Amino acid sequence: MKRKAEASEVSFRPHFKTHNSRSVGRIFRTMGVDKITVSSVTMAEYFAAAGWSDITIAFPVDVRAIARLKALGEAISLNLILDSVEAVNAVASAGVRASSWLDLDTGYRRTGVPAGDRQRIVSLATSVHSAGLELRGILTHAGHSYSAASTDQVVTIWNESVLQMVQAREWIASECGISPPISVGDTPGCSLVPVLENVDEIRPGNFVFYDLQQLTLGSCTADRLALAVECPIVGVYPDRGEVVIHGGAVHLSKEYLTDRSGEPVYGGVLQVGEDGWQLLDFEAARITSLSQEHGVVTLNSAAIRQLHVGDVLLIAPVHACLAANGASTPIKLVN
Amino acid sequence: MKRKAEASEVSFRPHFKTHNSRSVGRIFRTMGVDKITVSSVTMAEYFAAAGWSDITIAFPVDVRAIARLKALGEAISLNLILDSVEAVNAVASAGVRASSWLDLDTGYRRTGVPAGDRQRIVSLATSVHSAGLELRGILTHAGHSYSAASTDQVVTIWNESVLQMVQAREWIASECGISPPISVGDTPGCSLVPVLENVDEIRPGNFVFYDLQQLTLGSCTADRLALAVECPIVGVYPDRGEVVIHGGAVHLSKEYLTDRSGEPVYGGVLQVGEDGWQLLDFEAARITSLSQEHGVVTLNSAAIRQLHVGDVLLIAPVHACLAANGASTPIKLVN
Repeated sequence: MKRKAEASEVSFRPHFKTHNSRSVGRIFRTMGVDKITVSSVTMAEYFAAAGWSDITIAFPVDVRAIARLKALGEAISLNLILDSVEAVNAVASAGVRASSWLDLDTGYRRTGVPAGDRQRIVSLATSVHSAGLELRGILTHAGHSYSAASTDQVVTIWNESVLQMVQAREWIASECGISPPISVGDTPGCSLVPVLENVDEIRPGNFVFYDLQQLTLGSCTADRLALAVECPIVGVYPDRGEVVIHGGAVHLSKEYLTDRSGEPVYGGVLQVGEDGWQLLDFEAARITSLSQEHGVVTLNSAAIRQLHVGDVLLIAPVHACLAANGASTPIKLVN
Repeated sequence: MKRKAEASEVSFRPHFKTHNSRSVGRIFRTMGVDKITVSSVTMAEYFAAAGWSDITIAFPVDVRAIARLKALGEAISLNLILDSVEAVNAVASAGVRASSWLDLDTGYRRTGVPAGDRQRIVSLATSVHSAGLELRGILTHAGHSYSAASTDQVVTIWNESVLQMVQAREWIASECGISPPISVGDTPGCSLVPVLENVDEIRPGNFVFYDLQQLTLGSCTADRLALAVECPIVGVYPDRGEVVIHGGAVHLSKEYLTDRSGEPVYGGVLQVGEDGWQLLDFEAARITSLSQEHGVVTLNSAAIRQLHVGDVLLIAPVHACLAANGASTPIKLVN
């Protein structure tokens, strides 16, 4: 992903919410990454303490955390995203030292000023200036790519989103006299768009591990799945074609996919071979239900015969970010 | 729930996985509760360190954690559940000091020996004796009550489950000469069955808070919802009829209900009044989508007009156990 950003002459600011781990962060640093994205004040504090000095919090300003933001702004180069005059004023009046990114909504409908609303965009840009804050750029997260029905549609969503950002930049340029850089996010788009044109910064996160959701979307191939949850087998039930693992909703999250027959799949099983691990077909093995601590894995009879209480299954999570967040121990790096 | 157990002359061993909190545990202790249930070795260690000296781990024995179980068994009165000869032998050969409960499956299909399988039940009971372990009782969790379509069906599932346990006890009595006590679990059953007959111990957990799932099942009324997640509003979008809160999948879990039109609901909104909080109708306010840190709350126009960035919404979780587990700060007790 870093090479792709470099090839497109785009700044690379990976989202660290996926791993939320100092040790994974060090790999990025070794590769020359020096600026990052996070999604909470707590994460920003965690990575600032680990030596990261240029951090974007890609989550709206929580005005109740303004004192913590002020402290962060004194310690590092802090970037905040803003989509309301209230937030602009709260940041400015508290004297938070931070650069501002206008948060625009290109269709995901989560946060941001609608990217087609010229008047509100210009007015927000103006209010940033009036409040004495630096307008560092405009930013969006086109998270609706996660609902795309095909890889073509992921690319279409990316292109439409970038087009809206370029238009918004022109409006700001013509009315405020500055042409702000454009920052975009989502892993599906960053993975599938061949060349990253008309943007200045990318902030993908999930690509560091990928997961079953991304695999299903087509963002990656199965050999790129890089996160497994080690789950001990605590029960083997050959009559049912099932084993029970210590690996539940608190570890994997209740995020699910649906299989061909419309049934939920809460995780896959990775089989370790000579060339690393390999995802078993869902027909052969998949998690079919989760409670708080238990996972029920349904397997074909060939697979189940080889398993015993005390063995460990490597589970490929549906959503790596939530699984990494649920980890009860620090992420273990394996070659 | 404690009074109900006492009225039925049934032993009360509440499941502490729901709150997983020393401070909530102290309330139980004040009420005279002295034995508890947990669902992991880590939880058992946590509560043993907090002074609880009679703990059932209602989760299959993880043979990889046998040394920790041995240490626990030296420190407290430890109860383990067993459903395989392998587990019996692992516990016995490691010299773990613990009482054994046979884990029977009365229809939930998660763990346990099928409650109708006389031969396997008797053989497992015999293997416990042969291994020199104490057979303390037989235990089940009729978690299929969570899929019941009506409160009547919850009661039916309870009765069918208890009937199977009584039958299993008779088999053990006639072949092994002992009549083991019966322990049962689920909150829906314990809430809805008027009198707890033919059982010796109950282990409900969720009732301490209840939640939207239990409300929907009919286990409780809305005035019994006792857990709220404090979520700051970080964006107000009147055009969309939505606000965005800092309260995402890591805080609330992705557990959901479906509303009348089949759309997912990830949480409700509690309004604070003079008599405590009150659940708003889903038509008025509900969480309609969750990402890692963000929650999108859809509200009617009357409700949205009163809200501002920086206000705090009290969210009623769909599944209290997972929400309590996701808490980033210790549970705060409010009168």
